[in-house]
Amino acid sequence: MSILFISKADNPTEWQQALASLDPEIGFQVWPDSGKPEDIEVALVWKHPPGALLGLPNLKLIQSLGAGVDHIFMDPRLPKNVPIARLVDAELTRQMVEYVTLAVLSRHRRLDLIRGAQLLRDWQVIPPVPISCSRVGILGFGEIGRATGNTLVNLGFKVASWTRTPHTVGAVASYHGSEGFTSLLQKSDILICLLPLIAKTRGLLNAEAFATLPTDAYVINVARGAHLIEQDLLAAIDNGHLSGAWLDVFDAEPLPSNHPFWAHPKIVVTPHLAGLTVASSAASQVIHNLRLVHIGKTPQNLVDPTVGY
Amino acid sequence: MSILFISKADNPTEWQQALASLDPEIGFQVWPDSGKPEDIEVALVWKHPPGALLGLPNLKLIQSLGAGVDHIFMDPRLPKNVPIARLVDAELTRQMVEYVTLAVLSRHRRLDLIRGAQLLRDWQVIPPVPISCSRVGILGFGEIGRATGNTLVNLGFKVASWTRTPHTVGAVASYHGSEGFTSLLQKSDILICLLPLIAKTRGLLNAEAFATLPTDAYVINVARGAHLIEQDLLAAIDNGHLSGAWLDVFDAEPLPSNHPFWAHPKIVVTPHLAGLTVASSAASQVIHNLRLVHIGKTPQNLVDPTVGY
Repeated sequence: MSILFISKADNPTEWQQALASLDPEIGFQVWPDSGKPEDIEVALVWKHPPGALLGLPNLKLIQSLGAGVDHIFMDPRLPKNVPIARLVDAELTRQMVEYVTLAVLSRHRRLDLIRGAQLLRDWQVIPPVPISCSRVGILGFGEIGRATGNTLVNLGFKVASWTRTPHTVGAVASYHGSEGFTSLLQKSDILICLLPLIAKTRGLLNAEAFATLPTDAYVINVARGAHLIEQDLLAAIDNGHLSGAWLDVFDAEPLPSNHPFWAHPKIVVTPHLAGLTVASSAASQVIHNLRLVHIGKTPQNLVDPTVGY
Repeated sequence: MSILFISKADNPTEWQQALASLDPEIGFQVWPDSGKPEDIEVALVWKHPPGALLGLPNLKLIQSLGAGVDHIFMDPRLPKNVPIARLVDAELTRQMVEYVTLAVLSRHRRLDLIRGAQLLRDWQVIPPVPISCSRVGILGFGEIGRATGNTLVNLGFKVASWTRTPHTVGAVASYHGSEGFTSLLQKSDILICLLPLIAKTRGLLNAEAFATLPTDAYVINVARGAHLIEQDLLAAIDNGHLSGAWLDVFDAEPLPSNHPFWAHPKIVVTPHLAGLTVASSAASQVIHNLRLVHIGKTPQNLVDPTVGY
């Protein structure tokens, strides 16, 4: 009963220790050394090289190291019929809520203007914007979206959410489908993208969507770079319709050093750090799933390969 | 039954309209024109000139335009035996919570490092700091302190509070007195000052207090400039013990243009804008207090002149 670890972004030593502290019997291999391939029952992966999951005859689960699984489906030689699971970790969710709340409050309180005035030694009181002028729209309303929505509602923001298919939520207005998408955009002064990346959400943040947003709207993308058409965003900011953007994810990561986002005065660039999986917090979920598939049961947070999440 | 308005920081037209929309019968005078002085029953003030409240024979209430009343007690010619009331306004409280949460999250997520890396086009992943390393201590635990504490607890922060005299609070550890002050400081990676300014809290944030904080602690002051010894703060940051500060209030306001805070790389300066009283939200409380004192009853949010808040 072994785990094969494949990630350049996560620390194998931390994961090995976190897993061993919970169950020292579990084998742990770091790709490309898979030990005895027939022992591997779970592949714990983030952006694994295509084909790396072949030749594991007893592989019972492909476990993502993050909340997204789009990186797994990019492998054209993915083994067929092996279940794939997302990570739903409370600590990762908390970090995402922290990060998005920071971005929303920075925009709402005009932190860029405040810091700009400090550079000029200018005692210029920028009155707080009425919170009714900072209506928040959240695209995608899974674990992270709901937790973010609740935090923003508690801070006093009016929050609405959109999902592809209908969903019901408590205090937050909900929209779905393409008509609902337009309705949500029309009412979002601050738009937050927390969608999973699948074929139907790719490029959803495009010129048409930006034109539908109110004047001066602000875009926060913490999902995937491919949700957003980067040239369309630049055009919508530079023509004055949008007031700016806060981006943690990009088409190409690392963001190339000559990319126009880096030096844009209205764009905050952060290097895909909104939420990072913490081994000590997430290891128990991986072991739980390993034990489930080992005895032939269904793992938690399974994804539907026909939908892609 | 008239109100005398005295403030350079608040808009008299907004206040007149907000009050008239609730009760068009109430007279409204803007200092120095007090109309018929005998009609004035309430003075609505922010930093009124010393002596401005003399010569009002029927003055029944001095109503602060903000949560603090220290500006009122600075008048050596304050009329005796006239009740003084603070403003406790939900919108002001909400703004303060917004602002302090922004400051805490900016420090916790190292926004300064992240923005610095962007300037250098440096894709440098700064991993989120474990929230256990961002213990929050709140000095002063009235309306605003409690609301701030609840929001930070909901975001996952460990929060403790300190007040001069004992208090009991729900989810937040509480300390009091001078021993409790030391205990709180020792456990505060992020220290937030929300105290009222009275003789006993003046200069409380001094070299001794800073030395008691853990290494790398961060100080947020949104109360009054006189709580903090500015030279002591600079020394504690420049000798490397404190990691920085986020300040909304200062000894002298506006902050003089040659003040070292302006260009300090580890200090955020904002021009006393954390919470601004909104007339449309706060007017009903002023009218309620006016009606109470008019019929000889005790106004709400009365302060104790022997304590100073």
